[in-house]
Amino acid sequence: MRHTLSVLVENRTGVLARVAGLFGRRGYNIESLAVGTTERPEISRMTIIVDGDNNVIEQVMKQLHKLVEVIKINDLTGEEYVNRELILIKVTASTEQRAEIMQIVDIFRARIVDISGKSLIIEATGDPKKISALVEALRPFGIKEVVRTAEIAIVRGSQLKLD
Amino acid sequence: MRHTLSVLVENRTGVLARVAGLFGRRGYNIESLAVGTTERPEISRMTIIVDGDNNVIEQVMKQLHKLVEVIKINDLTGEEYVNRELILIKVTASTEQRAEIMQIVDIFRARIVDISGKSLIIEATGDPKKISALVEALRPFGIKEVVRTAEIAIVRGSQLKLD
Repeated sequence: MRHTLSVLVENRTGVLARVAGLFGRRGYNIESLAVGTTERPEISRMTIIVDGDNNVIEQVMKQLHKLVEVIKINDLTGEEYVNRELILIKVTASTEQRAEIMQIVDIFRARIVDISGKSLIIEATGDPKKISALVEALRPFGIKEVVRTAEIAIVRGSQLKLD
Repeated sequence: MRHTLSVLVENRTGVLARVAGLFGRRGYNIESLAVGTTERPEISRMTIIVDGDNNVIEQVMKQLHKLVEVIKINDLTGEEYVNRELILIKVTASTEQRAEIMQIVDIFRARIVDISGKSLIIEATGDPKKISALVEALRPFGIKEVVRTAEIAIVRGSQLKLD
């Protein structure tokens, strides 16, 4: 089962290496890992998507807790949460193709952020399924480059004690 | 000087640990590291923001090239590129405060993605400065939680040979 862990860590040099190394060494199947700053510059938040049964996830959380930089771990699985990733896609687009691409952009509530004679850059956010559907919709035009962030997540409403 | 490196890597177990470890061990000052899939599932792209003089950046690129998983490195510094990150912010919001928060959301071209009696979740994308400005604008209402991705970047137009 796919678990989404939201982990508060101290923003120290090497913390990403230690967390990623912990997963790498033990062969856990990390699907994605996002790390970003929080409202407090000395603290970062990692969103880790990991696949495995309950025993595996329990092991992962135990190992994470052992790292001195780890402040708090929330397993969002089973909670109602918003999950999103960001994508930038550069698509081949002649002037004639623009209208058709702009329709797709509207449908996906995406945005065009750069335009040239030969290509467009599109920015979109959504859950991973939506983002993948957008890539598929644009594929026929010719995708020149795709850059995606990893997934981040936040619990809806006030169901969870927040930091 | 702040450099933005766009690195194509093979999507193998442990590659994130090896790249992060390389920076950690040598004490390079990574500001952020984003990793996401590309249009080809076997290949991931990392966007690494690193601060240092030209010698440091040259060393970093040499070390990265030594890793077998690294396919290609582009230093986007000096190119015209679009850079973006994604944020989810949960803000305390009584019903009375909603209108004022929605004005801020409009100004920043952000979106409200969840609403409850006591809080709102706002999603926004932008360069790191814009994102930080949004956080500051929302701070007076009471920020309950912030989750940010690292920054991703893509070169504008067709100035660079693309993959």
